[in-house]
Amino acid sequence: MSRLISSKEEHKYLQVAEGIEQMIQDEVLRIGDKLPSVRVLSDEYGISMGTAFQAYYHLEGKGLIEARPKSGYYVRFNNKRFPGIPSATAPEPVANEISTREMIAQVFSGITAEDRINFSLAAPSVELLPAAKLNKSVVHALRSSRHHCLNYEDIQGNPDLRRQAARLTFNWNGQVSADEIVVTAGCMEALVMCLKAATKSGDTVAIESPTYFGIFQLIESLGLKAVEIPAHPVTGIDLNFLEQSIVRFDIRACVFVPSFNNPLGSCMPDEKKKELVDLITRHRIPLIEDDIYGELYFGRQRPKTCKSFDREGWVLHCTSVSKSLAPGYRIGWCIPGRYLERVKELKLMHTVSGTTLTQVALAHFLSIGRYEYHLKNLRKALHTQCLRYTQAIVQHFPEEVRLSRPAGGFVLWVELDQALDAHRLYQEALKHQVSIVPGQIFSASGHYRNCIRIGYGRRYDETVDYGLRLLGGLVKKMAKK
Amino acid sequence: MSRLISSKEEHKYLQVAEGIEQMIQDEVLRIGDKLPSVRVLSDEYGISMGTAFQAYYHLEGKGLIEARPKSGYYVRFNNKRFPGIPSATAPEPVANEISTREMIAQVFSGITAEDRINFSLAAPSVELLPAAKLNKSVVHALRSSRHHCLNYEDIQGNPDLRRQAARLTFNWNGQVSADEIVVTAGCMEALVMCLKAATKSGDTVAIESPTYFGIFQLIESLGLKAVEIPAHPVTGIDLNFLEQSIVRFDIRACVFVPSFNNPLGSCMPDEKKKELVDLITRHRIPLIEDDIYGELYFGRQRPKTCKSFDREGWVLHCTSVSKSLAPGYRIGWCIPGRYLERVKELKLMHTVSGTTLTQVALAHFLSIGRYEYHLKNLRKALHTQCLRYTQAIVQHFPEEVRLSRPAGGFVLWVELDQALDAHRLYQEALKHQVSIVPGQIFSASGHYRNCIRIGYGRRYDETVDYGLRLLGGLVKKMAKK
Repeated sequence: MSRLISSKEEHKYLQVAEGIEQMIQDEVLRIGDKLPSVRVLSDEYGISMGTAFQAYYHLEGKGLIEARPKSGYYVRFNNKRFPGIPSATAPEPVANEISTREMIAQVFSGITAEDRINFSLAAPSVELLPAAKLNKSVVHALRSSRHHCLNYEDIQGNPDLRRQAARLTFNWNGQVSADEIVVTAGCMEALVMCLKAATKSGDTVAIESPTYFGIFQLIESLGLKAVEIPAHPVTGIDLNFLEQSIVRFDIRACVFVPSFNNPLGSCMPDEKKKELVDLITRHRIPLIEDDIYGELYFGRQRPKTCKSFDREGWVLHCTSVSKSLAPGYRIGWCIPGRYLERVKELKLMHTVSGTTLTQVALAHFLSIGRYEYHLKNLRKALHTQCLRYTQAIVQHFPEEVRLSRPAGGFVLWVELDQALDAHRLYQEALKHQVSIVPGQIFSASGHYRNCIRIGYGRRYDETVDYGLRLLGGLVKKMAKK
Repeated sequence: MSRLISSKEEHKYLQVAEGIEQMIQDEVLRIGDKLPSVRVLSDEYGISMGTAFQAYYHLEGKGLIEARPKSGYYVRFNNKRFPGIPSATAPEPVANEISTREMIAQVFSGITAEDRINFSLAAPSVELLPAAKLNKSVVHALRSSRHHCLNYEDIQGNPDLRRQAARLTFNWNGQVSADEIVVTAGCMEALVMCLKAATKSGDTVAIESPTYFGIFQLIESLGLKAVEIPAHPVTGIDLNFLEQSIVRFDIRACVFVPSFNNPLGSCMPDEKKKELVDLITRHRIPLIEDDIYGELYFGRQRPKTCKSFDREGWVLHCTSVSKSLAPGYRIGWCIPGRYLERVKELKLMHTVSGTTLTQVALAHFLSIGRYEYHLKNLRKALHTQCLRYTQAIVQHFPEEVRLSRPAGGFVLWVELDQALDAHRLYQEALKHQVSIVPGQIFSASGHYRNCIRIGYGRRYDETVDYGLRLLGGLVKKMAKK
């Protein structure tokens, strides 16, 4: 529908919708209240009937209002009903050799099983992805390549793809040339290469707490030690704590997810990112910035990256299209700053070069401008899903539950009763073919036993509602024991 | 042509051809001699005219005879003219921290440049690959996948692909199930994962000398030390030397290329492979077996692998289709034996999973039986190219040149005058847009300064002949100085 109205009109319906949202927020309109008819709304605001409908559709999509047949629109939910946000833990700053292998192996052994209600992925479900257009780009790649995409690709990555990746950095004021970029097998390989390039065995590395377990495992596998820096559920890393730890633990590198941290969904404000870059530049410490979720913002503007403020090449920026376009392509890239040459060497050494076909196809897809259009739709869909999942959790879970407010990305972080063991909940849920990720695996020091991560990449439907209701029931049952 | 005759007939023409080859070898037929006409041949051997022609085509393909217009067939080359084989160096068994980075980076910086006569790749040129059939499998993959190959693939690798890979192990008496296989980003990632799984930082690892430089770099990057074990140009690794070194240097793992070692092209006889496996099993040392060239044999039978003789899981078998089918797909796999679980963990950690699309396409291609047919043609083509390149080198290079006799694979190893510096030759040749690989980078201890590696993956034609003549000229010129 939104495709049919001009961007000026679009602006109008959003203004109207925001006005109504504010009234719901302020409880001028209460849950259950009937909203003005579309005709009245159109008269009141001096907008077309179409635009008025559009405003209501928008609010309905967000789960704030609902249409009742032959009756009109009613207020359904008030954001004030949102539960408290999870607490920022201040983990004991002890350098650990991490080992959380078993639990992770268990959670991931059935990650692609299709007979489950899968809340354990932090990725979009396939119906949110532009499959037909991507397939056209694959066929185009096969036809246009003189060697049918069978030859080894350039070690640094397909040059056209690197040019497109460089163009995407404009979104965050990056001024990067194709020569400064190295294409990798997803963001994970980018992190591996950058971390290997910037550290040596035995070094101590700062990470956020909670943080993506893949980062722990990586740190362990490279023979590094981790210091956990507490992160605020809304604004991210505690910079004072970080600066103290740098001195105290002789930290040699940082690995952070400044925009839409997994699992918190928090986003460091731009000015705080700048402060962080100033801090690590002053200490001459490389910062590996995982920006895999950066394009999936719910606000009006893309957040800046740390790389946006990097003047001396200490930031190694990593990202991919695995979360935003094509998980199965396994294409990511990094901008390693002063570690460029070393990262290129490591790429040659570890995987030689990336898959030619998917790189050529992606370069084509990006060059015809489909990505921006797709991202716009994806952001809207994810924001809506985030709100619907939130509402369902509020409805089905015990009242004392605390819940993150993701500003982007794919996951909700749910803090449950102190006594509850998330790993037990995970096991119970699995018996009912529902999968979540227990909080324990997001910490190296045994924190977050009472937290779970719920991915909302799947479109909200009755099955999802059933799954969340079931989870809520299990939590209530376990709390009673 | 060979497609048109039955396999029984094929056997006949090969018998006849071998008979003639032997006569040339024994100088019963000398260079310049006229061969019997096709009719006479057919009468003499009691074969059809077609089969007689086939025998001559075969010998012509090998470069041993030539057709002269309106005159008949003549002997062109005698294998006795082959130069001596390169000497087996016995490198000082000193454990080194390897650093040959700069030269390798230089050689590989322009590896995909298309304006060169490229003898520096150990890979098939694209006209030897079944591009159209592979593309059909890609399109089939896109159409048959419910999620358009956009979802993350199984971490261990696509199950159908693993079943096909398990089936391929029948070729060497392997009895491996799909569950024992981990799909990787080419053979290189398989080596990385296996080496990481089987060693820890600081360990000493045995490698062949000369050996593929990628293996050195990898060893360095993992903080390991290398001990070079001398390899015979025909029969491979010196097992006595290996056993002594195991004790003397506390070797914790071996990384060998037992079939068609790069750069020597040597192949350990099957019984020697068995001895090697007995040896490492006795010492409880993991053997990482790089079998990437195993299917590309020139003889009648595929050589066995070390894994064929492995009863206790100490052999970690690694291979890929990069050399035999689709370099750009970046698909390999390993059978890690007792290190299976650790390799699966590392795979999740380092690249999560492989590219879905190319895995599904490859599984399809393998399932329809095209691979065997293609391999048969590829082996023939490579054997022919190997012989033609050899003949050209004999013709254009100084007489004292020594030359390997590859029994399979893609490369010739050329030993030049002691005084010649291969890296200087590399630089000189590059000025004329001809690229080779200097021998230095195949050793960690500065051996092979007077050797070069020449890849014959490109079909023999006038450009190749020009390139080899140019190289020979440069060698002669440098020798005079």
